[in-house]
Amino acid sequence: MRRVRYSVAMSLDGYIAGPQGESDWILMDPEIDFQALFAAFDTVLLGRKTYEATRQPGNESGMPGIQTYVFSRTLLPADYPGAIVSDDPTATVTALRQKAGKDIWLFGGGTLFRSCLQLGLVDAVEVAIIPVLLGGGVPLLPAPATLAKLKLVQHRVYEQTGTVSLEYAVA
Amino acid sequence: MRRVRYSVAMSLDGYIAGPQGESDWILMDPEIDFQALFAAFDTVLLGRKTYEATRQPGNESGMPGIQTYVFSRTLLPADYPGAIVSDDPTATVTALRQKAGKDIWLFGGGTLFRSCLQLGLVDAVEVAIIPVLLGGGVPLLPAPATLAKLKLVQHRVYEQTGTVSLEYAVA
Repeated sequence: MRRVRYSVAMSLDGYIAGPQGESDWILMDPEIDFQALFAAFDTVLLGRKTYEATRQPGNESGMPGIQTYVFSRTLLPADYPGAIVSDDPTATVTALRQKAGKDIWLFGGGTLFRSCLQLGLVDAVEVAIIPVLLGGGVPLLPAPATLAKLKLVQHRVYEQTGTVSLEYAVA
Repeated sequence: MRRVRYSVAMSLDGYIAGPQGESDWILMDPEIDFQALFAAFDTVLLGRKTYEATRQPGNESGMPGIQTYVFSRTLLPADYPGAIVSDDPTATVTALRQKAGKDIWLFGGGTLFRSCLQLGLVDAVEVAIIPVLLGGGVPLLPAPATLAKLKLVQHRVYEQTGTVSLEYAVA
């Protein structure tokens, strides 16, 4: 079965974005094969805030070849050109997992991750730890959340930037 | 010069203790050489709350062969048998760094780390990442704190438990 993978860059102190949503602290290590990463997915799941923070003018449809799902309780499909809007992560993600396809990228934010984790809908947590302490921002997993055990599956160190990639299965 | 090292176990989501101060989520990997770790230090620095949470009845003096410093603005030396009390991290840690000796273990909590980091008194941040998401607790570095760049110096993966040890220098 295709997997739902929460795959993000994270500061050592556990933030996926800065206090104002900044991502300028994320080092782009030249050895990270982003093309291979993108090629593993055909679907991306985003919370409303993350979608609004990351969409680019003129590129509302997101990444080419990847279907975007936005989770929102309040907004309408017309607000998200090119994306599919859902207010029901359980139904939508369960259906997506059962369909054939590539893996599903849970892009964030932390609140959507928390909902999906609690519902048992997340297969993998993959963090690229950037060598920085942000001191505040958008948490990987906002408190309060239920404890979840993980299993380390793979790791890699990118020497040029000191980025550490850790891949866990949700136990 | 001897170094001040913030050396802690951390959940993947950035907590050094659970919501009630729990440490039962910390896996003791048999391959971690705790004796060698302890032998590297002759001094330990603790915030008041961490000291009170970790001291054991009958062992108020802490670890054998290691001098304990407790930082507190409110309490008196008589409250801390066996420990040296200071209300001035800058003066105390600066003086300690200039004295000869083994390395200095900044044991926590996060608030003392934040103060020392802001004052430029921390040389290294060393985390043993336990494969768990706690969902709440005592943060590695409580917000708000100033952004601090790190440099990855060393890493090791402990296969039995999936603990990942990362050692950074403060840039």
